[in-house]
Amino acid sequence: MSVLEAAPPRPPLPVTVVDELRALFGSRLHLGQAMRHQHGCSEAHFEPRLPDAVIFAHSTDEVVAIVQICVPASIPIIPFGAGTSIEGNTLPVRGGISVDLSEMTEIVEVNADDLDCTVQAGVRREQLNEHLRNMGLFFPIDPGANATIGGMAATRASGTNAVRYGTMREAVLSLKVVTPDGRVIRTARRARKSAAGFDLTRLYVGSEGTLGIITEVTLRLFGIPEAISSAVCSFETLAGAVDTVVQSIQLGIPLARVEILDDVQMKAVNAWSNLDYPELTTLFFEFHGSPTYVKEQVETVSELAAANGGGEFRWSNLPEERSKLWKARHEAYYAAVNMRPGATGWATDVCVPISRLAECISETKQDLQKASVPATILGHVGDGNFHVVFSLDPHSPDELAEAGAINARLVRRALLMDGTCTGEHGIGLGKQDWLVEELGDAVEIMRTLKRALDPHDLFNPGKIFAL
Amino acid sequence: MSVLEAAPPRPPLPVTVVDELRALFGSRLHLGQAMRHQHGCSEAHFEPRLPDAVIFAHSTDEVVAIVQICVPASIPIIPFGAGTSIEGNTLPVRGGISVDLSEMTEIVEVNADDLDCTVQAGVRREQLNEHLRNMGLFFPIDPGANATIGGMAATRASGTNAVRYGTMREAVLSLKVVTPDGRVIRTARRARKSAAGFDLTRLYVGSEGTLGIITEVTLRLFGIPEAISSAVCSFETLAGAVDTVVQSIQLGIPLARVEILDDVQMKAVNAWSNLDYPELTTLFFEFHGSPTYVKEQVETVSELAAANGGGEFRWSNLPEERSKLWKARHEAYYAAVNMRPGATGWATDVCVPISRLAECISETKQDLQKASVPATILGHVGDGNFHVVFSLDPHSPDELAEAGAINARLVRRALLMDGTCTGEHGIGLGKQDWLVEELGDAVEIMRTLKRALDPHDLFNPGKIFAL
Repeated sequence: MSVLEAAPPRPPLPVTVVDELRALFGSRLHLGQAMRHQHGCSEAHFEPRLPDAVIFAHSTDEVVAIVQICVPASIPIIPFGAGTSIEGNTLPVRGGISVDLSEMTEIVEVNADDLDCTVQAGVRREQLNEHLRNMGLFFPIDPGANATIGGMAATRASGTNAVRYGTMREAVLSLKVVTPDGRVIRTARRARKSAAGFDLTRLYVGSEGTLGIITEVTLRLFGIPEAISSAVCSFETLAGAVDTVVQSIQLGIPLARVEILDDVQMKAVNAWSNLDYPELTTLFFEFHGSPTYVKEQVETVSELAAANGGGEFRWSNLPEERSKLWKARHEAYYAAVNMRPGATGWATDVCVPISRLAECISETKQDLQKASVPATILGHVGDGNFHVVFSLDPHSPDELAEAGAINARLVRRALLMDGTCTGEHGIGLGKQDWLVEELGDAVEIMRTLKRALDPHDLFNPGKIFAL
Repeated sequence: MSVLEAAPPRPPLPVTVVDELRALFGSRLHLGQAMRHQHGCSEAHFEPRLPDAVIFAHSTDEVVAIVQICVPASIPIIPFGAGTSIEGNTLPVRGGISVDLSEMTEIVEVNADDLDCTVQAGVRREQLNEHLRNMGLFFPIDPGANATIGGMAATRASGTNAVRYGTMREAVLSLKVVTPDGRVIRTARRARKSAAGFDLTRLYVGSEGTLGIITEVTLRLFGIPEAISSAVCSFETLAGAVDTVVQSIQLGIPLARVEILDDVQMKAVNAWSNLDYPELTTLFFEFHGSPTYVKEQVETVSELAAANGGGEFRWSNLPEERSKLWKARHEAYYAAVNMRPGATGWATDVCVPISRLAECISETKQDLQKASVPATILGHVGDGNFHVVFSLDPHSPDELAEAGAINARLVRRALLMDGTCTGEHGIGLGKQDWLVEELGDAVEIMRTLKRALDPHDLFNPGKIFAL
């Protein structure tokens, strides 16, 4: 039985609760249909599930106040950031309060000498990088969407730079969290490493709001590299592109970014971003380092690409050219979805050991070639992570079913290769059965942790697993 | 009240339990004083606390059997590896069974193309690296001692290479764990990244055996670099040495290793390893990469060192010279303890944001200069992590008290700088009060997790915190 089917009819918010919340939040408490709908939809194919109310919180203390009012009244609390998650992670399947943190946009401190910063959960990654640029620093985690840092932490997001700089698992040094019992905890100090007790930071990173609400995040930063070079290279075959990446990784080349886009995706990108790339399987590369070191990396990777049927590298060394290139990559999801006007997107998300990547992508490509729904392949191949993006007729149950069947085969294929059902999108609503297939009894340990920290199942209930 | 004081008198092991265990383990069940003493002592200054029995387990299934026999009988279970931890992490403070995993030495698989391997918990890091060498691979985490991989995971160990390659937090891809309810779970698949549910891998890494027993570990590996260069450089001042490191890190130089040894430590190293280094504050460096890139790193760091009062770099480019250099570093702890024959060691372990490192080490050095007990400073300065090693008369309560007072001032100094009370040794018995000072209410969340997963407090009870 899915979470959606299990949702019982629920009573309206008690008047006393509404009065208490209105007294504290005034016009930042929203009960109207439009705002609730905005917080009850997702970018993906899930049915809308509306919260009973939306509150824009402005501080950790305000989040504590919401918890103190809602928990005794058994009202679910669902944290909300930019709403860019794609496994239904923020949908209020049992109603309750959508706590919108997107107005908590303070950059609390930047410790340039320590290469770290602390931000409120609602800061978006582009805002942070604009703030850091003049200090010669950057925050590398880049899931494509201009997500909030809190949401990225809660989803254990990653994206294009993860192959070099890690995911939110590695990027987060410490979190401020409001727990279900209304405490405010800080999960760690700012030291680069620590062996002080259980790793609560990592427990909360990826917990999707089910164990508490992240209100502040302390992040590792990096110096902007002296030299940055980006390039695009087309390949005769999909296997040739993947092998180039795998061989580079095995040689220890510290690729800063390496993205694969298949022929269908390149066609969509050309159309969406008005570009003229060859419509073949393509790798988007970025190299970081000193000028000498970047040159050396480029030479090695160019040789590998040529040996694997790659064409010429098209270089973008100027910042504005690079921005254009990566903007095209970042908009690839929207380009894919909009291959058909008015379509709905569905992005799958598997990650496999890199030795199995060529095989996994090739079999998936064969499956897509037999399908009737349009779909592209793109992904962060350096990590073994890739997505199929479907462009679905929102009114066709048949298309949704077909995409579902392809996704099921894809996930099972990845699991058979000792991979994961989600590299970076999280479990949300969409991957709950697969989580159990992937990790078996370990999911029972997760349930035990959830029951211990959120005994009344009020924090983003019904996500990751049904209790 | 400390854990030691709180330990109640306890009954002997029930005869039925002994009979059951003997039927399964035969001569691998040890009840004699000598073996119990060996598992009830530590390398540090803690009083011996003997287990009631020692069992050498040979498989995950055998660990499950021990759990199934001991948990219903309320008998504590304490995992034991190489016994090289130094915060009393493996001392059976409430008796019970010391489960020695050091004979679980199978290297289960090496996936060279994926740069990972799976080993049983009792494999030691030197055994693993000998096994990997001919494949051109290595496992970088190096805490000095030839610890077991299971123990290193349980302690969240790190050491000399962490500045470049991370700690056990980053090195572990997945764990096989026997949980207190007798389940065997695998915490993750082999994919490089995953957003599939709570990060149980990171929860167990650093849990010190309090949440279950790690029996297998899947690790990230790295290719042996094309070029490796090691060097030793003496400095006029401690601040000059630290500043060289901090500036290198801030410039993004990927130092593979950078270790500081103060003048007293260098004197001890010369005496212990029969060497002739200048007895000044010294940095031990290692650089990894392509020949060109190593050369570039070396040039930059040499310039920084010279500007900070560093002398000539003494190079060790041949493998046997490098081994000699790092052997001296690895034996630094023993060299420091043995400044006085028959002395007992006490290694402290703080880690601070690198911008505060020079100040933290300098103030500590001043404190040591006023002390009557001999002590050295050494550490993994690239991470902001350093140790004071005391050489204590084991029969002098006054010396122990003096070292304790210096350690207390050191930890408080580190916490005031937003650092941690332990960079890599764990909490064990020695840092429990400091853990609370460091993380406050977050420790209550840890206690809740412990109670949920080990409700009868039988897995390494009394460690990290008293329940």
